[in-house]
Amino acid sequence: MNTPEFDMMGFGEVLLRLTPSGRGRILGAEHFEREIGGAELNVAAGLAMLGLRTAMITSLPDSPIGQFARNRIRFTGVSDDWVYFDQSAEARLGLYFYEHGESPRKPMVIYDRKGSTFSKFLIKNLDPSPIGRARLLHLTGITLGLGTEMRAQALHLVRAFHEAGGIVSFDVNYRAALWSESDARECLKEILPLTNFLFVSEETARRLPERTGDLQSIQQSFAKEFGCKVVATTRRTVESPTRHSWDSLVYDAKTDQFHSEEPYRSIEVVDRIGSGDAFVAGALYGLLAGNGAADAVSYGNALAAIKCTLHGDMVLSNRREILSVIRQHQAFGQGDEMSR
Amino acid sequence: MNTPEFDMMGFGEVLLRLTPSGRGRILGAEHFEREIGGAELNVAAGLAMLGLRTAMITSLPDSPIGQFARNRIRFTGVSDDWVYFDQSAEARLGLYFYEHGESPRKPMVIYDRKGSTFSKFLIKNLDPSPIGRARLLHLTGITLGLGTEMRAQALHLVRAFHEAGGIVSFDVNYRAALWSESDARECLKEILPLTNFLFVSEETARRLPERTGDLQSIQQSFAKEFGCKVVATTRRTVESPTRHSWDSLVYDAKTDQFHSEEPYRSIEVVDRIGSGDAFVAGALYGLLAGNGAADAVSYGNALAAIKCTLHGDMVLSNRREILSVIRQHQAFGQGDEMSR
Amino acid sequence: MNTPEFDMMGFGEVLLRLTPSGRGRILGAEHFEREIGGAELNVAAGLAMLGLRTAMITSLPDSPIGQFARNRIRFTGVSDDWVYFDQSAEARLGLYFYEHGESPRKPMVIYDRKGSTFSKFLIKNLDPSPIGRARLLHLTGITLGLGTEMRAQALHLVRAFHEAGGIVSFDVNYRAALWSESDARECLKEILPLTNFLFVSEETARRLPERTGDLQSIQQSFAKEFGCKVVATTRRTVESPTRHSWDSLVYDAKTDQFHSEEPYRSIEVVDRIGSGDAFVAGALYGLLAGNGAADAVSYGNALAAIKCTLHGDMVLSNRREILSVIRQHQAFGQGDEMSR
Amino acid sequence: MNTPEFDMMGFGEVLLRLTPSGRGRILGAEHFEREIGGAELNVAAGLAMLGLRTAMITSLPDSPIGQFARNRIRFTGVSDDWVYFDQSAEARLGLYFYEHGESPRKPMVIYDRKGSTFSKFLIKNLDPSPIGRARLLHLTGITLGLGTEMRAQALHLVRAFHEAGGIVSFDVNYRAALWSESDARECLKEILPLTNFLFVSEETARRLPERTGDLQSIQQSFAKEFGCKVVATTRRTVESPTRHSWDSLVYDAKTDQFHSEEPYRSIEVVDRIGSGDAFVAGALYGLLAGNGAADAVSYGNALAAIKCTLHGDMVLSNRREILSVIRQHQAFGQGDEMSR
Amino acid sequence: MNTPEFDMMGFGEVLLRLTPSGRGRILGAEHFEREIGGAELNVAAGLAMLGLRTAMITSLPDSPIGQFARNRIRFTGVSDDWVYFDQSAEARLGLYFYEHGESPRKPMVIYDRKGSTFSKFLIKNLDPSPIGRARLLHLTGITLGLGTEMRAQALHLVRAFHEAGGIVSFDVNYRAALWSESDARECLKEILPLTNFLFVSEETARRLPERTGDLQSIQQSFAKEFGCKVVATTRRTVESPTRHSWDSLVYDAKTDQFHSEEPYRSIEVVDRIGSGDAFVAGALYGLLAGNGAADAVSYGNALAAIKCTLHGDMVLSNRREILSVIRQHQAFGQGDEMSR
Amino acid sequence: MNTPEFDMMGFGEVLLRLTPSGRGRILGAEHFEREIGGAELNVAAGLAMLGLRTAMITSLPDSPIGQFARNRIRFTGVSDDWVYFDQSAEARLGLYFYEHGESPRKPMVIYDRKGSTFSKFLIKNLDPSPIGRARLLHLTGITLGLGTEMRAQALHLVRAFHEAGGIVSFDVNYRAALWSESDARECLKEILPLTNFLFVSEETARRLPERTGDLQSIQQSFAKEFGCKVVATTRRTVESPTRHSWDSLVYDAKTDQFHSEEPYRSIEVVDRIGSGDAFVAGALYGLLAGNGAADAVSYGNALAAIKCTLHGDMVLSNRREILSVIRQHQAFGQGDEMSR
Repeated sequence: MNTPEFDMMGFGEVLLRLTPSGRGRILGAEHFEREIGGAELNVAAGLAMLGLRTAMITSLPDSPIGQFARNRIRFTGVSDDWVYFDQSAEARLGLYFYEHGESPRKPMVIYDRKGSTFSKFLIKNLDPSPIGRARLLHLTGITLGLGTEMRAQALHLVRAFHEAGGIVSFDVNYRAALWSESDARECLKEILPLTNFLFVSEETARRLPERTGDLQSIQQSFAKEFGCKVVATTRRTVESPTRHSWDSLVYDAKTDQFHSEEPYRSIEVVDRIGSGDAFVAGALYGLLAGNGAADAVSYGNALAAIKCTLHGDMVLSNRREILSVIRQHQAFGQGDEMSR
Repeated sequence: MNTPEFDMMGFGEVLLRLTPSGRGRILGAEHFEREIGGAELNVAAGLAMLGLRTAMITSLPDSPIGQFARNRIRFTGVSDDWVYFDQSAEARLGLYFYEHGESPRKPMVIYDRKGSTFSKFLIKNLDPSPIGRARLLHLTGITLGLGTEMRAQALHLVRAFHEAGGIVSFDVNYRAALWSESDARECLKEILPLTNFLFVSEETARRLPERTGDLQSIQQSFAKEFGCKVVATTRRTVESPTRHSWDSLVYDAKTDQFHSEEPYRSIEVVDRIGSGDAFVAGALYGLLAGNGAADAVSYGNALAAIKCTLHGDMVLSNRREILSVIRQHQAFGQGDEMSR
Repeated sequence: MNTPEFDMMGFGEVLLRLTPSGRGRILGAEHFEREIGGAELNVAAGLAMLGLRTAMITSLPDSPIGQFARNRIRFTGVSDDWVYFDQSAEARLGLYFYEHGESPRKPMVIYDRKGSTFSKFLIKNLDPSPIGRARLLHLTGITLGLGTEMRAQALHLVRAFHEAGGIVSFDVNYRAALWSESDARECLKEILPLTNFLFVSEETARRLPERTGDLQSIQQSFAKEFGCKVVATTRRTVESPTRHSWDSLVYDAKTDQFHSEEPYRSIEVVDRIGSGDAFVAGALYGLLAGNGAADAVSYGNALAAIKCTLHGDMVLSNRREILSVIRQHQAFGQGDEMSR
Repeated sequence: MNTPEFDMMGFGEVLLRLTPSGRGRILGAEHFEREIGGAELNVAAGLAMLGLRTAMITSLPDSPIGQFARNRIRFTGVSDDWVYFDQSAEARLGLYFYEHGESPRKPMVIYDRKGSTFSKFLIKNLDPSPIGRARLLHLTGITLGLGTEMRAQALHLVRAFHEAGGIVSFDVNYRAALWSESDARECLKEILPLTNFLFVSEETARRLPERTGDLQSIQQSFAKEFGCKVVATTRRTVESPTRHSWDSLVYDAKTDQFHSEEPYRSIEVVDRIGSGDAFVAGALYGLLAGNGAADAVSYGNALAAIKCTLHGDMVLSNRREILSVIRQHQAFGQGDEMSR
Repeated sequence: MNTPEFDMMGFGEVLLRLTPSGRGRILGAEHFEREIGGAELNVAAGLAMLGLRTAMITSLPDSPIGQFARNRIRFTGVSDDWVYFDQSAEARLGLYFYEHGESPRKPMVIYDRKGSTFSKFLIKNLDPSPIGRARLLHLTGITLGLGTEMRAQALHLVRAFHEAGGIVSFDVNYRAALWSESDARECLKEILPLTNFLFVSEETARRLPERTGDLQSIQQSFAKEFGCKVVATTRRTVESPTRHSWDSLVYDAKTDQFHSEEPYRSIEVVDRIGSGDAFVAGALYGLLAGNGAADAVSYGNALAAIKCTLHGDMVLSNRREILSVIRQHQAFGQGDEMSR
Repeated sequence: MNTPEFDMMGFGEVLLRLTPSGRGRILGAEHFEREIGGAELNVAAGLAMLGLRTAMITSLPDSPIGQFARNRIRFTGVSDDWVYFDQSAEARLGLYFYEHGESPRKPMVIYDRKGSTFSKFLIKNLDPSPIGRARLLHLTGITLGLGTEMRAQALHLVRAFHEAGGIVSFDVNYRAALWSESDARECLKEILPLTNFLFVSEETARRLPERTGDLQSIQQSFAKEFGCKVVATTRRTVESPTRHSWDSLVYDAKTDQFHSEEPYRSIEVVDRIGSGDAFVAGALYGLLAGNGAADAVSYGNALAAIKCTLHGDMVLSNRREILSVIRQHQAFGQGDEMSR
């Protein structure tokens, strides 16, 4: 196989996001900010910001709304080569409303994504085929939760990528609003054997595949049972809606070692959406372009922490800033208080 | 029958509207203004601004978005006594995007209303019944175009109102995107015999009921054939997206007379959405609270012209301002150039 | 007496509020947000958000400014049936400027309310009379401080409500800028015997009626001496302008019991204006629609805490959100960190 | 007399202005722009922009609101040496709301200026005295309409200036909302004999001093009867709220000549407030620093026309831009379409 | 030669643009909108919107400002494969301020572009070489005016492209602020023989190459003397800063024919910057992807007219909208007044 | 020497500042706030807010941008009598971008000040001379770092002021981006003997003049060696980008005493830029108008702490507010939680 054109390819839905301006409320605001996001896109964008070549496989309505989404995908440095434009008159972009929280009021998300163009998307419409065009394919359980047809073709795509020698990265990201636990459990049995890099929360790791024991043994069990090479779990501690701490544990099956670092504490949270995806982006960067699992931890945690301080779903930062945050973190916060 | 509590009741969908701030574009804007609108609501709000008691029969999701819509309905002076809150997890408020135009670029509307809570609404859920609670029921062809079930129950409601002695006002407002001409034609045959006040564009009047001849004879034919008491037709002349002229012709079957006045010319259009509904509101005010068809013309035209100068779907004005515009118009524009 | 149409009626002034956008300063800002508020309206709005039927007795100028205020009153779910429109050319709506604080700079309020329409309002102009139309009448010491004529007619109104069998709720809310301590002390002697539910700060309870002893014995003394059925006192601890804690003590004379709960700590304060009124709303909800004094504490504290996190004078929330905050608080903060 | 420090001094009220953002409405807007303005201040600012040294005699509350006003006065280049800060707790800055118009809806102004600090201002509090400190004193009939005490001290000030050899400039600017025609007529008899430069609209010139005949003979009569050296009259033709034309006629008593020029036609009006004051500023510039009445016409018309295209009460432009507009106007619109 | 990857490549400077929000003024505004633009980029973006593959050769500072510019370049659909990031500490992005005009006040541009990274850019730093990678290279006289070194290497680049068989498109776009007429005249002699598609204003065509005669003969002379295949000239008629008309004449040397169409009249101008570049984009689209010079006229005029109605330097539209404008224009304005 | 007209005069550069609106990022924001600032101007403005008469010696481009800067200088109460307008076509105002930080992301500043009008400014162009016109001249090491010519004339100006009996205040403020340590060290040797009031950070005091020992002995050494009368050092402790503490130590050579107070802790930082300059302003106020070094500490710390809570470079506050903060601080935070 030749070197693929892209380092990473995401397969998933892109949503329009509407946030009341100035920390206003969904209940009362007149002004909204429009952005786009999506679990897989957020990962692709984070990697692009770090300098890797990434692309999205997704579907957008062939309308000014879809074109805005495409332009924003490009803005974040992600390729639109496999963005399909849905010509049907009924094509709609799924959307969601997001509201910030202040203690004791929690942040809130309201989804309106039923019947979106992506949920009806047929990968086979893509020409040329994306198979073999990227080193790594990333997807999340959200994509798998978008109906049985989407599930079937997603598994088909993953298998094709896997068989073409590509790396498969999968973030379980279970959402009860989308599908039942039993459906998810069945699906996991199919996708885990194809998965190289696995991202899973501790709670999901216990409930869905019904594991017990400490987190480390659970991580090991995924490697043993399904052959996953890397298993990563993150932990967010919520002091208040505007103060989080962030920690992660990454298991490297090859060396049978666990990697972690001092957590990021008292992160000043501007917008917590997408911080999990930012972790995935950083971790994949460490695995694809860095020194493996140790870098997966330091890049992953840094991107997650930075994301929390930024509006929007994506970590619109750059490599230099991220390295500076990592350095300062590793020096226990010593360093200049301002960059100039 | 006792005097009903309300002067007018509207039956129809309420939509969330998103407009790019500052005359921006759907294709590129980051900031949007959120408003609500709906053909029947716009009429109810216009009448409420003029001092009549109005209410809406509609359905909203039981969510912060639905509650915002309800609060805005109340803000415009319209009662929410028959606003039904849909508890289902999938309940969504239909929405649309609106973009202003500047010559040679036209204004644009993109709808995303499929599967909305109103389109699935069952009037029978309302308690108490709205029948007999208003002097007049108003609805438009948009409501009738929202599927066969909605059509059936709308006709049922109209018939019940009619039989309870209420006035029925109907604005044909045919939208090809919603239903076929033949479906609309069939439906018209059912609703026109129940209609007292008919609002219909000249083009629709010719195509749907397949009439020919001059506008006046077409208007008369509706009265003769279906018993409509008032038939009103408006004409918008578009000099550019920001300059319209507005004219109307109202036929009063009782006196067999046609009413019109000098058109409003060179209206400085800020937002043309809802101007037709504003006309209906003004016309109904003239018919319900004024001196009949002549007042229907002067109030209707004034509200339509004022609406064109206001952001949003509704004519948020008040009686004093409207009277001042009418007076100035009837004095051929003479008068103070500023109100202070 | 038949069941009254409204659960609660407020009598008091509505003010226009101007807040510099984006945490700007009165000294320098170019952009301001316009809102409305008022101690009694804030209570009525809070109750309406919780689902009770409330109304305001107040006066507004018959102008676009007054109409905006009326529309906003309706927006918050409060009835405008007893909103009087003052036709006089000099009618003005009182206003105030509000500026947020950040430590060590305190928040600031500048009033400009002299000669407002409400301060000249004559209740007798209202037709029909509001007496007997609500289960409860609420007013505050602010209304009583608006001059001797306002004081006289307010007492007259309270007495009439009381005699018609209504519940009287009174929040002392003493403001030194409006009237002298001795005037306030005299007035208290007249209104306390008519008061069922009394809201009073600890400091005011000691100074104005000149009580001593611990807070509990002071609360009891109001019940013994004047017959108040419920006496509620709140305590705000200000860590910084953006971090408050909130606590309250409610005495139920019938059972001779004191109710309180774990305070809300480290509330992330966006806007502290109206949090006292939000407490009153929650407490009245507990008393009118809940299980009495214990619910008064939990609803009152929750509304006060939520209000602190919201822009504007009023707690624009809904019952579901409030219940979720109460539940999470009672579970010591356990629960999801985001609502979706 | 030594050369005075200032070229012009204005005596009059400064008002806070609130304009709905983005051409919104007083009836519905949530966002407002705060500015300051005032008939005399607008003139002083226009002259300062053109390079003359000007100052205001006025009173402001000693509060952040007053300080903002003072800072803005300085921003416009006007000296605050005679700005008095009113320490009284009740001191308020008068204010007004302004709403743009679009045809057929007119612009609207709502004043709330009763009881302002300026209306209670005592010039004698000023230290040092402003007498003899400026070449010219300008005031308008608005100042004279603010009550009998203000009228008395204003006339006293004018007389002192006149007697100290200063030029007196007076803009009649009659406002029926402030005082009666008969009061104004009496007052005119006192101030006109002290007036060197008179600004009066044609309508006022006919009604208040009860003159008849053509405009030219009326202008001459003021010179003959009262000794005015220059009499200027402007004419605004309102095609629509966003399209005005502007014309003026200036009579120079010394040469007994009338000066005018081709009107500014189809001015694209952004904000018409203050355009009359801008004319006065330009005219005074022509008289004080230019070549007399002919320059009064060209500067006056240009400033008035430019002001119409600018937000706010004042013509925040500079000499270079004004000269460029004059040149282009005198070349019948020929010239570059963009300045770069 | 293989089919090149890109249809068009632009070589030129990208500038940061700052525009006062809400039609404010450079002299007074506090809020600015940041955008990017540049004569060649505007052309590349217009072509990308129409569906062609375009790229920019330019230089940006390696900073968050440069990264924003890169992201926006991608947003518009243009490739950043040849965007060079300047690592030097002194690298700056040139910028300009833009202010809208209203009659009689003209729009204004203030440049601050001295010492920009592009003006110091060395093409030889690019790796890989852009030669042979696009069907067409476009540049303007602005690039040639950025100093003698830039001129030398630009000519070198043009020659290399020409010799590699590429099409060269050149827009003279003479700016007196950048270089002298004599320098420009000399440079023209070098570049015109390499130019296939020439865009030149009538005035420049007369003055720089010192031609006389009617426009048609001047156009022909460029073809005869230098071998240009297409010569296009546009004409803007400025009724006011907000109303322009647009006309063009395109000469096709191969058929020796002149192409034009009915001008776009009374364009409602929101922002005139970049409309000339939009014409070039449309014209190149007609030449590269359409039916030649006739399409160059219709696409070019349509894009120019649409651009005038859009904020920013670029015509962020799409093919469907552009076709709809062309159709409506060719039907003499008949058609729906709103797109829905 | 007569009493000088001004209390303080600053000599230094004024920069245009661009900050993304709403805590946005330089990398992505579309909206920016424009302000002005500059180390010396910030000091002059702080003193003017406290009531002293201050002026700036600086240079601005003769353009709308320069005029905005001049107007803002006046807005802050600072005189523009020595503001020079640079007529050259290339005159530019230096500018910088500022981005807020949230932990772990730091605030960021990007300068673009090369070739600014001030860096080319020749003091000798000023007419009349500023020498002898102020009690105190203040400048910072930033001015000295703007090239050798600026350094030479700044030293010349300082010497002239010193010799005319004026007080010289100097804030070392070393910026490595502007000049080398060795150049700065040489320059210090020239300016320190002319300096009365010295502001220097502990780190700079150790590195540049190469001192060792504890801070107190270092402060004393400046007095002994160079004759400085007051030496002030501040210490900022950065808990996070939004929480700082502030402390200072002021040495009074005359009494050989050190002054300090309880630090301001947990300052809620909105914008940390200019807080050092605010300290200088407060300290100079204490020294010039208060009770000497003790007041220098209390005013200096209070202004620095207040500045941290305000947007922009300058402490736009007033004497009353500052006194209230000092009082509350000295009472260990006791007092009202809101000013009304």
